[in-house]
Amino acid sequence: MQRFALIGAGFIGSVHAANLAANPHVDFALVYDVDQRRAEQLADLHGARAATDLDQTFDPDQVDAVFIASSTHTHAENLRRAADAGVAALCEKPIDLDLAHAVDVVGYATERNARAMVNFNRRFDRDYVELRRVVDSGEIGEVELIQLTSRGPAMPPLSYIEVSGGQMRDQTVHFFDLARWIAGVDPVEVFATGSTLAEPRLADYGDVDTSAVVLRLPTGALVQIDSTRRTGYGYDERVEVLGSTGLVEARRQRAGAVSRYTAGRVVDDGLHAGWFERVRPTYGAALAHFVTALENDQVIAPSLDDGLKAQAIAEAATRSLATGKSEPITYPTMQAYPSSRRI
Amino acid sequence: MQRFALIGAGFIGSVHAANLAANPHVDFALVYDVDQRRAEQLADLHGARAATDLDQTFDPDQVDAVFIASSTHTHAENLRRAADAGVAALCEKPIDLDLAHAVDVVGYATERNARAMVNFNRRFDRDYVELRRVVDSGEIGEVELIQLTSRGPAMPPLSYIEVSGGQMRDQTVHFFDLARWIAGVDPVEVFATGSTLAEPRLADYGDVDTSAVVLRLPTGALVQIDSTRRTGYGYDERVEVLGSTGLVEARRQRAGAVSRYTAGRVVDDGLHAGWFERVRPTYGAALAHFVTALENDQVIAPSLDDGLKAQAIAEAATRSLATGKSEPITYPTMQAYPSSRRI
Amino acid sequence: MQRFALIGAGFIGSVHAANLAANPHVDFALVYDVDQRRAEQLADLHGARAATDLDQTFDPDQVDAVFIASSTHTHAENLRRAADAGVAALCEKPIDLDLAHAVDVVGYATERNARAMVNFNRRFDRDYVELRRVVDSGEIGEVELIQLTSRGPAMPPLSYIEVSGGQMRDQTVHFFDLARWIAGVDPVEVFATGSTLAEPRLADYGDVDTSAVVLRLPTGALVQIDSTRRTGYGYDERVEVLGSTGLVEARRQRAGAVSRYTAGRVVDDGLHAGWFERVRPTYGAALAHFVTALENDQVIAPSLDDGLKAQAIAEAATRSLATGKSEPITYPTMQAYPSSRRI
Amino acid sequence: MQRFALIGAGFIGSVHAANLAANPHVDFALVYDVDQRRAEQLADLHGARAATDLDQTFDPDQVDAVFIASSTHTHAENLRRAADAGVAALCEKPIDLDLAHAVDVVGYATERNARAMVNFNRRFDRDYVELRRVVDSGEIGEVELIQLTSRGPAMPPLSYIEVSGGQMRDQTVHFFDLARWIAGVDPVEVFATGSTLAEPRLADYGDVDTSAVVLRLPTGALVQIDSTRRTGYGYDERVEVLGSTGLVEARRQRAGAVSRYTAGRVVDDGLHAGWFERVRPTYGAALAHFVTALENDQVIAPSLDDGLKAQAIAEAATRSLATGKSEPITYPTMQAYPSSRRI
Repeated sequence: MQRFALIGAGFIGSVHAANLAANPHVDFALVYDVDQRRAEQLADLHGARAATDLDQTFDPDQVDAVFIASSTHTHAENLRRAADAGVAALCEKPIDLDLAHAVDVVGYATERNARAMVNFNRRFDRDYVELRRVVDSGEIGEVELIQLTSRGPAMPPLSYIEVSGGQMRDQTVHFFDLARWIAGVDPVEVFATGSTLAEPRLADYGDVDTSAVVLRLPTGALVQIDSTRRTGYGYDERVEVLGSTGLVEARRQRAGAVSRYTAGRVVDDGLHAGWFERVRPTYGAALAHFVTALENDQVIAPSLDDGLKAQAIAEAATRSLATGKSEPITYPTMQAYPSSRRI
Repeated sequence: MQRFALIGAGFIGSVHAANLAANPHVDFALVYDVDQRRAEQLADLHGARAATDLDQTFDPDQVDAVFIASSTHTHAENLRRAADAGVAALCEKPIDLDLAHAVDVVGYATERNARAMVNFNRRFDRDYVELRRVVDSGEIGEVELIQLTSRGPAMPPLSYIEVSGGQMRDQTVHFFDLARWIAGVDPVEVFATGSTLAEPRLADYGDVDTSAVVLRLPTGALVQIDSTRRTGYGYDERVEVLGSTGLVEARRQRAGAVSRYTAGRVVDDGLHAGWFERVRPTYGAALAHFVTALENDQVIAPSLDDGLKAQAIAEAATRSLATGKSEPITYPTMQAYPSSRRI
Repeated sequence: MQRFALIGAGFIGSVHAANLAANPHVDFALVYDVDQRRAEQLADLHGARAATDLDQTFDPDQVDAVFIASSTHTHAENLRRAADAGVAALCEKPIDLDLAHAVDVVGYATERNARAMVNFNRRFDRDYVELRRVVDSGEIGEVELIQLTSRGPAMPPLSYIEVSGGQMRDQTVHFFDLARWIAGVDPVEVFATGSTLAEPRLADYGDVDTSAVVLRLPTGALVQIDSTRRTGYGYDERVEVLGSTGLVEARRQRAGAVSRYTAGRVVDDGLHAGWFERVRPTYGAALAHFVTALENDQVIAPSLDDGLKAQAIAEAATRSLATGKSEPITYPTMQAYPSSRRI
Repeated sequence: MQRFALIGAGFIGSVHAANLAANPHVDFALVYDVDQRRAEQLADLHGARAATDLDQTFDPDQVDAVFIASSTHTHAENLRRAADAGVAALCEKPIDLDLAHAVDVVGYATERNARAMVNFNRRFDRDYVELRRVVDSGEIGEVELIQLTSRGPAMPPLSYIEVSGGQMRDQTVHFFDLARWIAGVDPVEVFATGSTLAEPRLADYGDVDTSAVVLRLPTGALVQIDSTRRTGYGYDERVEVLGSTGLVEARRQRAGAVSRYTAGRVVDDGLHAGWFERVRPTYGAALAHFVTALENDQVIAPSLDDGLKAQAIAEAATRSLATGKSEPITYPTMQAYPSSRRI
C-alpha cells in the first residue's frame, strides 16, 4: 500500500484523485492546493484529507509518494522537494519549460536516487502498448517510418498558449516521447515547419497551430508528425509504424459503433470530442504502473531522463521552425535510451 | 441521495457494489448475502456495512431502495418484500423463471404501487441508446426488419444450464426485450428452431445452444435473432434495424483499435473476450437511470411489465422450438407497451 | 476456342455479349433475339453476326455452345434443343418456373449427357469464393450458422413481380444456392415468413417483399436469410458463416473508399446503387469458368441439378410462407450434392 | 470518333490498347513499336493495324490523336512531332527527365496550340475525384494540411532505378501533381529527406527509397508526403485533407471484403498486391476524359504545364534531399494554376 499526496486540485488533479481513490494499492492520504477550499472539496469527495500546508505532502511519515499535478512552474521545485524528502514522485510533464532548469533539477534528483516518473500517459494507452509490443516482437521487421498524428478539436485560449511554451513544447512533445518509446532509439535530427491557420494571433507569440515535423533516427528511419490545434471534427490521434516487412497502426478511436445507412452514404459515429475522452483510461494505467513499480522496487519509466529527452527534441524542433533547416538534436544527459528500454 | 441495500454479493453483486459506491447520488448503506462473510468483505471494500439479516435490507428507516442481485429463485420473494415495505427495487432478470409466479408477484407489486425496475441493462448501452434514438427520430422511416445477434464465447457449465430455463429464457430473453424496446410494439408471433452443436448433452435438458428465432410484429415487420453459446472468436453482439428509408446498426465492438498489415491480409484487434467486457458500462448507466428516476419521481423503465413481456416471448419461443410452428405470443398483462414507451 | 451463340439481346444479354467478346477463349459468333433488329445492333457492337433464325444457334457446325439469356419461359425449351444438338449450354436461372417441368427437361438433358451450367453467378464472386475457401479449409471448424442478407434497393415494377414466381423463387433462390454451395450439404427443412411492407399490392399476387427464412441442414446447422425488395440505402448483400471455432464473412461492399469527418460523425461512401454494380464482375468469371470447363472437359458446376435443388428449396419455402410451419424439403433428383461438391 | 495511334506496345502500352479498343468514341487505328512484331501482336489482339513506321502515326489523314506510351526519352520528341502535325497527344509522364528540355518542348507545343494531356492518371481515380469534389464544395472549409502516402510493395530492379531520375522525379512526382490538383494552388517551398533502408545500393545513384517531404502552400497550408519503395504488405496509397472545419480522406483500398474472426483478432483481406491493381480503372477514365475533351473541343487537363510544374517540384525536392533545407520552388512557366483549375 502506497500512501499518496496529491499536489494540485484543478481539473487534471481531480482526474488523478479519482484514480488514486480507485487504485487498491493506494492509500489516498492528502490533497494540497494553493486554494485550500478546492483541496478540501476534492479530498472530501474521495475520503482523503486536505493538507494543511505543502510541507505536509513531503512528510515521509505521512506519505510514500506525491503526485505532482500543480502548475507547470512549480513542477521542478516540487520534484526537488520530493527528492530531498526521499518521497517518490509522479510528475506531470514538463519538468520545467526551461530545459536548462529542468536538467538541473533532474541532476539533483538523480544524485539523490529519487524514484520519479514523468507522466507521459500515452505510453499506457492500451492500443499504443499493443502497437509497441508488435514492433518489439519483430513482426513488422525493422522500423523504417513512423507516422504520428496529433490534432486537437479546438484552439485553446490564448492565455493558455501564452504560457505553454509553443506547439512543439506543449503538444508535439507527447509524440516526441512516443516516437522514442516506439523506436527504441533517440532521434538525431529534426525538421519542423508550421503556420498559424487556426488563430493568426499566435504569430504574436512566435507560435504555430499547424505544423509538420520530420525526425531522423540514427538508423536512417524517419518519423513524420503532424500537429494541429483545431480540427473541426473532434480529437484525432493515431500512430502508424512501417517496418521492413509490414505495418502496424493504432487507428483513430471512435466515440461509438453506430452506423446509419442511407442512399449513397454511411454515417458512422465520429471521433471523441476532446483529448480527455480519448486518453482517459491512460491515467489510471500510468498510475497503476508507477504504484506497482514502487511496490516491487522495479525500474520506473518514463523516467526523468525520458522527460528531458522529449523536451530536448522540442527545443530543436522549435529552432527548426525558425531556421527552415533540419537541426541536430543535442541531448542534455549521457544516459543512452537502452537503459530504460526494457521497461 | 438514495440509500441502497445490495442483496447478493456474488460476481454480479460485486459489479453493482462498485457502481453503487461510485454513484454520487447513492448512499451505499448495506450489503446482504446468505454468506455473511462474503457480504462483509464486499461491504468493507466500499465503505458499506454488512446487513445483520435480510429484514434489515427492507427497513425503510435505513434504505430507500434495494438492488436485488441474489439467486434467481429469490427474486420474486425479494420483490414482494420490497413492495410490502415501500422500498424501491432494482431487480436482476428474470422476475421468476416460472412465468405464472412472476405474473403473481408483479400483480402484487403493482397493486402496492411499487417502484421497481427490471435490470435489462442493454437498454442503457451507449450504442443501443443511439440506435434507438435514430429509430425514434424517423431517420430510417418505419421499422421493417430487425436483426439481433447474441453469441457467447464459450459454453457455460452444464450446472448453470440446468437451472437457466434454457437458451430462450436465459440468453435470448435480453434480445426479446431489446426488440420490443427498439420497435416500440409487442411481437405477436414467434418461430424458433435450434440445435445442440456446441454441447450435445444439452439435449438432456431439452435445451439448445444454437438457435434462430423469427418474431412478427403487429405491423408485419420481422425480427431475426440468432443466439449461440460458443463462438470460438469472442463475444459477439449486435443490432441492426432496417427501416423503410434506411438502416441503422450498432456494430460489433472490438477490444482495441490496432491493425497489423502484412502481405495479403490485415489483422485487427478482435472482439471482447466475454459478455462482461462488452456490457460493463451498461450497469452503471442502468443504475444511474434508476436513481435519477427515484430522485425525480419519474416513470421507471424497464418496468416489471417489461420483464413479464420478455419472459412471455421466451415462453412462446420455447414452445415453438418443440412444435416447429410459428406460435402466437400471449402477454400476461393488460398494459399496452406504449404506456412506458416515452421513457 | 469455343464458338458461342447468345440467345437473348436484352439488358442481361448485352452484359453477356460484352463478356463473350472480351473472353480470349471465346469466338463470339452469333446473337439471336426475337427482335431481329436488337440482335443485329448487339452483334454489330461486338463484331458478331445476328442469327437468321433460332435454329442457327443450335447448329453444331457453327457453334459449340449457347448462352441462354432469353425470357424465362423459353429456358427449358432452349436447353432441350441444345441437348438434342449436342451443343453445350450456359443457362440463366431458373430452368423453368414450374419445377416439374424443369425436372423433365433436366432429365431429358441428363440422359443425353448434355454439358450445361446454370448461371448462379454469385458462386464466382471474388469474396464468396474466398469465404468458401476459408470454410473448406477448416479454419473456422464445422459450419454451425450461416447468415445471408439479400436486399434490393427498390421495388421492381409489378409487371416484373407478376411473372417472377414470387420472392422465394426469384430473389431468395440465389441464396438457397449459396447456402448449399457454402455448406456443402442439402438443407432438409425450411421455415419462411414474410410481409408486404414496401408494396402492399404484392398481396394480390400472394407475394411478399420482406421475408425471413430459416433453413435446417442435416447436421443441425441453421441458415438465416433475410430478403427485402427495397432498402432505401442501396443494394445490400452479405454472407456470414459461423463455425465451431471461428467466423468468416463477406462484408457489404461499398461504392468507394472516401470518408468525410465532421464533428460527431464520419460519413463514408455508401453501398452500390443496385445489384448490377455489385455483381458485375461475377458474370465474366462465371463465363470463364464455363469456357475453361468446356475446353478442358472438366465437370461443370453449378449443374442443372444444382439449379433444380435451389428451386426445390424455393418451393418448400413458398409453402412455408402459407402454412406458418417448418416444411420438409423434397429434392426432385437422386443425385446427392457431393457429386458436384469438388468443383 | 477519334482515330488513335498508340506509340509503345510494352506493358503499359498494352493496358492503353485495351482501353482504346473498349472506348466507344475511339477508332483504334494504329500501333507503333520499335519492335515491329510486338506492335503487330498487340494490334491483332484489338483489331488495329501495326504502323509501318513512326511517321505513319503522325499522319493527320490517318489519325486524330497519338497516345505516347513509348520509352521516357522519346516522349519529348513524339510530343514535338504531334505538335508539328497538328495531331492531339496523350503523353505518359514525364515530358522529359531533363526539366529544361521539357520546358523547351512544351514551349514549342504551346506556340503551335497543340492539344495535349500529360497522363497523371490518379486525377481520374474515383475516390480522388470524390475527395476533390468535397474539398471544392467547401464542406471541409479551407485546406490546411494534406497528407499523401505513396508506398510500393517491392523495390523495382536497380536497372529501372538507374534511369528513373530518383524517387522524387519517378514516384513522388505523382503526388506533387495530386497535391497541386487538390489544393488548387502551387506549392512555394519544399523540404525533403530520405534514406536507403530497403536497398542500400541506391546510395550509389544518389537515390533514396524511404522519404518524407513537406510542401508549403502560399496560404501557409502544409503538405506531408511519405514515399517508400517496399512495404512488405502490398501497395499502399491514400490521401487525407484536413480543412478548417473537417477532414476528407481517400482510404486505403483493400483487395477484397472478407473477414475472418478468431479469438482475439480479426483477419481482413489486405491491400492490392501492386500499383497496377490499385490504379487500373484510372487509365480508362483518363482516356475517356481526353477523348471527350477532343470531341467537344474542351480544355484538356492535366495540361503540359501541369506536367512541368510537378517536375519542378520534384527538382526542388531533389535539391532539398541534398541540402537539408526547405528549398524554394521555381516554376518554369508563367501560367498560373487557376487557368486550368476549372477543369
